[in-house]
Amino acid sequence: MTTSSRLSWKDVRDEIHDAILTGRYAPGDRLPRDADIAEDLNCARSTVQRAMQDLSDSGLIERRRKGGTRVRRDPVTRATLDIPITRREVEQKGGRYSYQLLHSAEEPAPREVLAAFELGTAPRQMQRVEALHLSDGKPYLLEDRWICLETVPEIRDLDLQRESANEWLVVNKPYSRCDVKFYAISADDHVADVLQTAPGAALFVIERTTWIDTAPITTVKGITAPGYQLLTTT
Amino acid sequence: MTTSSRLSWKDVRDEIHDAILTGRYAPGDRLPRDADIAEDLNCARSTVQRAMQDLSDSGLIERRRKGGTRVRRDPVTRATLDIPITRREVEQKGGRYSYQLLHSAEEPAPREVLAAFELGTAPRQMQRVEALHLSDGKPYLLEDRWICLETVPEIRDLDLQRESANEWLVVNKPYSRCDVKFYAISADDHVADVLQTAPGAALFVIERTTWIDTAPITTVKGITAPGYQLLTTT
Repeated sequence: MTTSSRLSWKDVRDEIHDAILTGRYAPGDRLPRDADIAEDLNCARSTVQRAMQDLSDSGLIERRRKGGTRVRRDPVTRATLDIPITRREVEQKGGRYSYQLLHSAEEPAPREVLAAFELGTAPRQMQRVEALHLSDGKPYLLEDRWICLETVPEIRDLDLQRESANEWLVVNKPYSRCDVKFYAISADDHVADVLQTAPGAALFVIERTTWIDTAPITTVKGITAPGYQLLTTT
Repeated sequence: MTTSSRLSWKDVRDEIHDAILTGRYAPGDRLPRDADIAEDLNCARSTVQRAMQDLSDSGLIERRRKGGTRVRRDPVTRATLDIPITRREVEQKGGRYSYQLLHSAEEPAPREVLAAFELGTAPRQMQRVEALHLSDGKPYLLEDRWICLETVPEIRDLDLQRESANEWLVVNKPYSRCDVKFYAISADDHVADVLQTAPGAALFVIERTTWIDTAPITTVKGITAPGYQLLTTT
């Protein structure tokens, strides 16, 4: 079997992408069946399937088991964001990373934390951790975190002065579900003080809440210093 | 050939995911070869490949052509965001959508717009469009847009009072590259006035710039009203 002249799935994806970009297939149009495209392009059906998977992942087409493949009528901008641990993020941007533990204690979780975890309103002790991440000695991100002691009892024995909860959790507590929220807040006096900015400054927040199965692990607000931008290209 | 008792790619993915979550494979560990996993689980190698693709897409493992498959040493939180057209977003949240064109004119593009498009500093006329999107009659998002006339000459003939540039562009001008930025701004007097909030209010901004091949299409700041949150679950 000669396969060297055959198209790769990326070639096939680009062919179909071009046909949509040039308007040969318009929004809402049905695409030919995978088998017909495979025959037309002289490639394996699995190659067409892989290409279609990629186009579907990027939000350009819709695949339905019975209804075949269609060009999406109202295409979305699908952005994929990789949020690394903060040390890596600082280092990737060329900064010198440092870290300060500001506060760590067992405290009753406030209502908004229970709500983020989808827990009831019954009082519950959790580990509260507040830490500052710096780039070249300047505030970069304020970590405002709550950790569920039932799910992560080891946190009691951890020296958070030396090891950041951010880093330890990412490596040791893989999650099965993660909720992410992006929004803006005005700095209150405390946040302004820690991030060395003016009260009322507009700050971008990345909030993440994770679970392993249904057990809550941690919820964290990453309150970024003024000027922070989260970027992605598709 | 009997396939009914064989595992689906999702079964295989869940098996491997569990092995990572329970620590059988730790960060940095190498996973067995696809062929060995396939033999072990009595399924096709292509099924294992599909499962691995999914785990790689979600940021849990790394695939290297020569180096095999490893559990990521510094896992990232990979968030996939679908940003729909604003009318759909309002409607999906149960709001009644309306739209007001505030301004539309050919104007010299400011330096930051040329920079977003990765164009030189030579003066260039572009179509500036400012429009307000409302939910239940209340400001929802201020659209601050520049459109490249060379790439989108049709915009001159469009009645932007009736049809939003947001909607028309998404349907008629598919892009091959999209840069997305998220950040926070303080409302200036004009933005505060349009969004009916106080000057200095912290606002979340979604900025998008699109190209078809290397030709710039449009750059737009979606300045959201106070309280806006962008959510995703993985």
